Amino acid sequence: MPTLDEVNGLTPREFSATFGAVYEHSPWIAERAFERAPFATPLDLQLALYGVVQAASEGERLALVQAHPELAGKEAGAGALTEASAREQSAAGLGTLTPDQKAELRELNRRYREAFGFPFVICARLNRRDAILGTLRARLANTREQELANAIAQIGEIARLRIADLVDRAR
Amino acid sequence: MPTLDEVNGLTPREFSATFGAVYEHSPWIAERAFERAPFATPLDLQLALYGVVQAASEGERLALVQAHPELAGKEAGAGALTEASAREQSAAGLGTLTPDQKAELRELNRRYREAFGFPFVICARLNRRDAILGTLRARLANTREQELANAIAQIGEIARLRIADLVDRAR
Repeated sequence: MPTLDEVNGLTPREFSATFGAVYEHSPWIAERAFERAPFATPLDLQLALYGVVQAASEGERLALVQAHPELAGKEAGAGALTEASAREQSAAGLGTLTPDQKAELRELNRRYREAFGFPFVICARLNRRDAILGTLRARLANTREQELANAIAQIGEIARLRIADLVDRAR
Repeated sequence: MPTLDEVNGLTPREFSATFGAVYEHSPWIAERAFERAPFATPLDLQLALYGVVQAASEGERLALVQAHPELAGKEAGAGALTEASAREQSAAGLGTLTPDQKAELRELNRRYREAFGFPFVICARLNRRDAILGTLRARLANTREQELANAIAQIGEIARLRIADLVDRAR
């Protein structure tokens, strides 16, 4: 795990390789954030990445949400999740759903995508399995605009926890 | 509504008066953020405020969560909400709950506070009434540590939308 001093010494290519996966299948976020290096603290690094998402266009934000897999969806079934997503979904207990729970989640995911045009996104590490299912059901009551904002906020939490795993708190 | 140039010209006292209410009953956040002025963009102002919360101690973060009113709770009943909270709760349709819905929300709020020791916090502007009730029920399944992080994330969204109401996007 690199220290912050080591992070500040990375080339753009190395920085992308290290932090490109913080945002699912969206290395452009790390690439833009690197323009703000060097970072004085790990928090400044986190804020630089978060700021790129906040400053992104609406189309880019939608693409970021679209880049996420469905929870316990076809990517998980095919073993095609990113390493981070696989670990996070497993930690939330999504790897041990009963067939009934799995069918329920698939149906809720289908309804969500049909309603909004993008997958349901939630920070799996901040929710237990039952909370994920209940929140998905609840958020179906929202508008598309609200859900796009909720997805981006959840992606911010996913990223915050992934960054904490990637940078040594010591300098 | 002040422009960013006007915000950058505020005294510390004026800055606190303008942005102190972005975080519910927690003007210390705006006070610390002002140390990062001047701000080059509205986003930099938002990131400075968000960064203070991220850098705060665990005790301070808990106090921030504790400073929030219960949704449709006793503050709302007594007309004692902050102006922003009253507007946000009303927009989510919490002002027109049926007696049964009100009783259900009170009971869920009570169980939540009993389980975690702080009030349930959700960004009311990003959720409709039924989504709020369903999410509250769902989040009862989480751990205290998860819920503290979820509350802080929701407070970040509440603040982001309040800031957007307070600063003219033009310079």
